[in-house]
Amino acid sequence: MGRGRSERVIVTKVDGLGPERSVSRGPDRLVVEEPMSIQLDGTLVATTMRTPGSDFELAAGFCLTEGMLGDAAVSGVRYCADGSALASEFNVVTVETGGRAPEPTPRLGNVSSSCGWCGSEQLDELVARLSPLPASEPFDLDVLQTVPDTVRDGQDLFAATGAVHAAAAFDRDGRIVLLREDVGRHNAVDKVVGSLLLASGADAPGAGLGLFVSGRASVEMVQKAWAGGFAALVAVSAPTALAVQAARRANLLLAGFVRGGAMNVYAPERI
Amino acid sequence: MGRGRSERVIVTKVDGLGPERSVSRGPDRLVVEEPMSIQLDGTLVATTMRTPGSDFELAAGFCLTEGMLGDAAVSGVRYCADGSALASEFNVVTVETGGRAPEPTPRLGNVSSSCGWCGSEQLDELVARLSPLPASEPFDLDVLQTVPDTVRDGQDLFAATGAVHAAAAFDRDGRIVLLREDVGRHNAVDKVVGSLLLASGADAPGAGLGLFVSGRASVEMVQKAWAGGFAALVAVSAPTALAVQAARRANLLLAGFVRGGAMNVYAPERI
Repeated sequence: MGRGRSERVIVTKVDGLGPERSVSRGPDRLVVEEPMSIQLDGTLVATTMRTPGSDFELAAGFCLTEGMLGDAAVSGVRYCADGSALASEFNVVTVETGGRAPEPTPRLGNVSSSCGWCGSEQLDELVARLSPLPASEPFDLDVLQTVPDTVRDGQDLFAATGAVHAAAAFDRDGRIVLLREDVGRHNAVDKVVGSLLLASGADAPGAGLGLFVSGRASVEMVQKAWAGGFAALVAVSAPTALAVQAARRANLLLAGFVRGGAMNVYAPERI
Repeated sequence: MGRGRSERVIVTKVDGLGPERSVSRGPDRLVVEEPMSIQLDGTLVATTMRTPGSDFELAAGFCLTEGMLGDAAVSGVRYCADGSALASEFNVVTVETGGRAPEPTPRLGNVSSSCGWCGSEQLDELVARLSPLPASEPFDLDVLQTVPDTVRDGQDLFAATGAVHAAAAFDRDGRIVLLREDVGRHNAVDKVVGSLLLASGADAPGAGLGLFVSGRASVEMVQKAWAGGFAALVAVSAPTALAVQAARRANLLLAGFVRGGAMNVYAPERI
């Protein structure tokens, strides 16, 4: 476990109810969350509460999966670091494209018309921005079912704190290519995508791989898997209705409720 | 269950591995998520992915718990509705204070210095904005332990979809005053706080009550409970390190891992 990803605290432990109740004091280990701001070519685009570690990967992955890079390649990632030697100087990370990325827009959400937009318009915007994923060799259904257990075995921070999200990239044999843990579900995914991006430089760094998420699959998770070029998304829990629609448009295999020796495949519509 | 909060979809159900594996098709019910934009006195302050329903409460609660109202009272909440009769016109909600709220700042996060800020500065900002909660009669430890089961019994949408967050306000006897479910944890809390705010008009609508959340307690959850004036925050899962620091500064009782007949009390430091 990296330095500063969890902290020890003394807590009051309550066990049982009524006259059977015992109260004691003892140590507990908690996951750390700290704010981190992400800049793209010097412009602030987001502040996220994250668990420290893999900060460059988080920043690069965020810019890719939120569609902020356009066709630009990442030429560098660095801390703001002004030499003040304060811890806070490690809480701003700048992603550099030499100005080749589109003018950054803050992540407040898009409102395209006077009266907002709805889920189907949001899908249309994703389809306009992201081409459907290329057809690829299907994943073996047995392999998809084994991924959650394999990931769980590698979750150091979860083992220590009992509450942290994980994301992982896996190959067609169910091997974990890389695993990242974070207090935030989105951050864990962005760290995985960013790690692959910074290692490969490719604009579809997840091509041929599957993406695992430890929680649910919201439409944002599908968007991030799609933008990262993954062929499959496996979630321990349920997808949302919009996530299923998006995955079907993306040509992304989406499996949910993958646990207890069973799973549901939500996309494609027929396998 | 309200209209449009869940949707039925036909999925592929996979059960078992290898030669024992069976594959069939059948219906599954999924939670709906739709974008909703929140305006304060006509200025866009956030777009959130939410489950439709209790939209006005969500908008009002968000503005309160994110500290956007200042000392202003909410004079009205309305849909953007331009008469176009499109579903999307119900995806923008405006909270009105007659211009008495401070100039809205988008929810991109604050960056106070050239090189970001850290968790302790974030706490200082919260303490500057929110006074510590008044001392109140302590909650009975047995009552706190019963809240998760009581809430679960009332979770219609969870029962239907198997994956949605809940937040609830409860009184000193463990009775659920109100319960809201949403695809987003923050939204569920904002709906609860907003419901109490719009019903009472008080600036500490949770005074004397406890707040239950079905997931973890991040610092944002503590901030929302604190801003809402609640006396206790009960989470089924773990708090983060920063959440515990914030709750201790807030004078907010914080219980976590409340399940299986046991719990940890993280704040106050001693009970």
